[in-house]
Amino acid sequence: MFKPSRILFQVGQTTKKYATMLKDPSVKYKPFKGVKLTDRTWPNNSITKAPRWLSTDLRDGNQSLPDPMTIPEKKLFFHKLLDIGFKEIEVSFPSASQTDFDFTRYAVENAPEDVNIQVLTQSREHLVRRTVESVKGAKRATIHTYLATSDLFRDVVFNMSKEDAIAKAIETTKLVRSLTKDDPNMQDTIWSYEFSPECFSDTPTDFAVEICEAVKNAWEPTAENPIIFNLPATVEVASPNVYADQIEYFCKHITEREKVCVSVHPHNDRGCGVAASELGLMAGADRVEGCLFGSGERTGNVDLVTVALNMYTQGVSPELDFSNLDEIVDIVEKCNKIAVNPRAPYGGSLVVCAFSGSHQDAIKKGFTKSEQRQQKEWAIPYLPLDPKDIGRSYEAVIRVNSQSGKGGAAWIILKALGLDLPRHLQVEFSNIVQSTADSLGKELKSEEIVNLFNETFMSNENAVLKLQEYDIFRNKSNDEREINAVLTINDKSINVKGKGNGPISSFIDAITSRFGTYFEVLSYSEHNIGSGTEGKAATYIQLSYINSNGDKVSKWGVGVNSDVSEASIQAIISVVNSLIETREIII
Amino acid sequence: MFKPSRILFQVGQTTKKYATMLKDPSVKYKPFKGVKLTDRTWPNNSITKAPRWLSTDLRDGNQSLPDPMTIPEKKLFFHKLLDIGFKEIEVSFPSASQTDFDFTRYAVENAPEDVNIQVLTQSREHLVRRTVESVKGAKRATIHTYLATSDLFRDVVFNMSKEDAIAKAIETTKLVRSLTKDDPNMQDTIWSYEFSPECFSDTPTDFAVEICEAVKNAWEPTAENPIIFNLPATVEVASPNVYADQIEYFCKHITEREKVCVSVHPHNDRGCGVAASELGLMAGADRVEGCLFGSGERTGNVDLVTVALNMYTQGVSPELDFSNLDEIVDIVEKCNKIAVNPRAPYGGSLVVCAFSGSHQDAIKKGFTKSEQRQQKEWAIPYLPLDPKDIGRSYEAVIRVNSQSGKGGAAWIILKALGLDLPRHLQVEFSNIVQSTADSLGKELKSEEIVNLFNETFMSNENAVLKLQEYDIFRNKSNDEREINAVLTINDKSINVKGKGNGPISSFIDAITSRFGTYFEVLSYSEHNIGSGTEGKAATYIQLSYINSNGDKVSKWGVGVNSDVSEASIQAIISVVNSLIETREIII
Repeated sequence: MFKPSRILFQVGQTTKKYATMLKDPSVKYKPFKGVKLTDRTWPNNSITKAPRWLSTDLRDGNQSLPDPMTIPEKKLFFHKLLDIGFKEIEVSFPSASQTDFDFTRYAVENAPEDVNIQVLTQSREHLVRRTVESVKGAKRATIHTYLATSDLFRDVVFNMSKEDAIAKAIETTKLVRSLTKDDPNMQDTIWSYEFSPECFSDTPTDFAVEICEAVKNAWEPTAENPIIFNLPATVEVASPNVYADQIEYFCKHITEREKVCVSVHPHNDRGCGVAASELGLMAGADRVEGCLFGSGERTGNVDLVTVALNMYTQGVSPELDFSNLDEIVDIVEKCNKIAVNPRAPYGGSLVVCAFSGSHQDAIKKGFTKSEQRQQKEWAIPYLPLDPKDIGRSYEAVIRVNSQSGKGGAAWIILKALGLDLPRHLQVEFSNIVQSTADSLGKELKSEEIVNLFNETFMSNENAVLKLQEYDIFRNKSNDEREINAVLTINDKSINVKGKGNGPISSFIDAITSRFGTYFEVLSYSEHNIGSGTEGKAATYIQLSYINSNGDKVSKWGVGVNSDVSEASIQAIISVVNSLIETREIII
Repeated sequence: MFKPSRILFQVGQTTKKYATMLKDPSVKYKPFKGVKLTDRTWPNNSITKAPRWLSTDLRDGNQSLPDPMTIPEKKLFFHKLLDIGFKEIEVSFPSASQTDFDFTRYAVENAPEDVNIQVLTQSREHLVRRTVESVKGAKRATIHTYLATSDLFRDVVFNMSKEDAIAKAIETTKLVRSLTKDDPNMQDTIWSYEFSPECFSDTPTDFAVEICEAVKNAWEPTAENPIIFNLPATVEVASPNVYADQIEYFCKHITEREKVCVSVHPHNDRGCGVAASELGLMAGADRVEGCLFGSGERTGNVDLVTVALNMYTQGVSPELDFSNLDEIVDIVEKCNKIAVNPRAPYGGSLVVCAFSGSHQDAIKKGFTKSEQRQQKEWAIPYLPLDPKDIGRSYEAVIRVNSQSGKGGAAWIILKALGLDLPRHLQVEFSNIVQSTADSLGKELKSEEIVNLFNETFMSNENAVLKLQEYDIFRNKSNDEREINAVLTINDKSINVKGKGNGPISSFIDAITSRFGTYFEVLSYSEHNIGSGTEGKAATYIQLSYINSNGDKVSKWGVGVNSDVSEASIQAIISVVNSLIETREIII
């Protein structure tokens, strides 16, 4: 009977026309004109103290989730916000549903004394009454009302003149006042009031000041309990410097500035929510509203984690505790049912990783220098924040894919095995890692890299040739060393003997006698791992030999043992085993 | 034998100490000091034309992927970049691996004439030679060299003085020059040269100018083919205004400005990469390097999609084509194997959605007004960009969860069924949608909302009572209407008769005679859907009746038919059916 497909087709059919307009968008969009600021000061400022923070995860965040939080999830999130140290939390739109009302009661009854429960309401009398009822008995509560003040909203949505809007805002403010701080029966609560000229960023700034001035006169705030004017970039309409200009203008023109708390509430439509918050604070704002990891309608509210930790790396305490960020990520993901972006600043899973070889190399050098110098100040290449400060591990820092250079793999070996590989061994190992990752077509995990190293350079359980025992004698007549060693080849014992000026040369002599391959020591180095009776020696030996094509080539071996001589012997045995494996040595 | 766990424990054991330092981070981090700019002009500027764009998805983006792209994926991505309109593409680090070298050859051989293939190399002779070799025969190629110039890198990573760094940069530049534009055998290619003082944002700006000045003299660029100085925020170390100050300082102090292309290359460690690009362009930069949707090490490179489409909504053509953004998202996700964040500006799946009821309501009003006024300029509340301009559908704009108000559901019904519901019906339907979403604990899909509407307000196939046929006569003596209708109750035919002053009142009379329930028409409205012979009428009828508790209540019914009388009768039958279902009417 009825054909919805026809209607749907009508909706879609103009796409092509718009696509051809792409080259000339000026017909359709006009550049945003900001406020004219002749005495701008904010670009010379920096952020030197923590602002007041408000989390609206449970209101603005929640209302935009495809699957809104259940009550147990809201409770979990609420308590995590308290743990982090939020002192102002917008918990709901209590007049919107019974669920929201009930959760507001829970928050009121479970909030610590110093925490302010904030609730949002439209400017309509029955909704305001219901909203005030929802926070009755709270220690501290903020009633948050709003009215869209932009020309677009007044025209298209409300059909309201500027005078109408001011009158409405005054009326609502007086109503809230009569129901809260002026009501003798409501004196158990410290009442705060917040007014948002919605779409502030798209409102003529002088009108925003005018309506807020009227609201301020209606509320009569004090310096001890200032009125909050929350200035939302409901939609981000221009670059963040334009928003900062608007904030600076507002801060300079609102009277009784000491009785006013200027709050920013940026959204992220142009990807600049964090910048808008920061430039807004530099421009004079006192407070930031947002959500953890930028939850909220469309592109989300500003991400409070980023704004806070950005302060932290500038030596300013945000007065919020993100020392266990992974746990916070888990809770946010569980409640929002939306994954935190792997590249989200600070919290993203890939953020404390370096895949690029040169990055890995530089990070490794940074850690080494920093340890050597016992440096207290954080200064590591490519890492603006110590991952430990947010409870994340150094282990995660370096990851190796087929694009990675020598630094990454070497760093993993250092961290996992305590082995500080000589530079040429780093290069050799890195080539092996790279070709392995290339042929597997994937990133190697740390354990895979460690296994690859063990198999390639160290004596191991599965090797054909193993050392059982050995003795070294000093020949007093010529000061030479003589070695007698018992080896097994595929578990069958053999005895070997050799002479030299030390354990390495005498064992090489013994190997040459037995297998016919002559080795030359190209490089040798050794360092300790740990100290005292627990300490071990690590030795790195690069041996050259003539291969079956007649070319002189080299191989590395690594040995670790509490006995430095045995460590060297194990390193040599590892080289011999790899030659057995490639059939350069026939047993 | 060896206990790696002990080492791992040592790495982890200081976490607690750092956590307690959280309240006093000043011991560990120091605020960043930017360049001193006394004659700052950028905050008064705006972006009025497209910059040069370079995509480094295939190089900087690819090297930081847990699973780097395969060759077929690189090719797919490369061709998509060409489709979008990129004229400069950094395709690889060709000296790093054979795979990268081979892909570079592919790009060189498949690039259109006006596209510049860019390749990155370290400042080492054999790598530079290999790199130049990789682009031999290209129509246009850019050799990109870099040298870290920050104090931290020179000290910790390279142990290099400022003089050493300058000498090295000059040496490399002269080498590239001798291998490219000065080589008589290499004159088939238009050679460009790019130099990046790596970590520019953390480099004393006067030193960055000094080293670039030396490089410029070594290269000797022309105004027709300027040298590119790419100024990376390798790590974002301060707020974006500080970066803009650095760019403005650089632009003002570099000589022969007309022979220099100043390029920004922001990363996103502080979540301000987009802002840094925009303020950088306002400060004088000519070119932006980045990746689609912000791929790249850690928090990623700046997201070029956002920077470009931000220009678009300011009436400036970015000269890139994102008219089919969903397809671009698909390709990027396939190649990077990392999902585009659902809240990423423009491309995120949730970005053209509105869940909040008041947002939905405002959007709906915006579309209606815009249509009525035949407005060419885009001005819709909460939607900075027309979703159609990026190939996204209006259908996706409005989504309904248990937090949504009346606007969203009504909008979906308008789009799917062409029904423009009266305001009171919107409220009633919205309550039904909300309680359904609440009880299901999830967002309702558009189809579910449409089904819910059909079941609740419209006559449907499964109903108990159905209309088979009817006749209406006009009684000429008293001008009354008389209706004779054949209905079925569970497929059993019945005849009903009634009188009134029109089809609605006479059919209500017939229903009252048959079932004993008296209905009063509280409201009635009607509009057409479509026009001409295809057109239909939609009628909305609100009927009141006395329920079994003796209360006067009301119900809505909706009918759609090419015959306006039948549409009304169907609307009434729908109300009767819902009363049968709730046993208010017993059959």
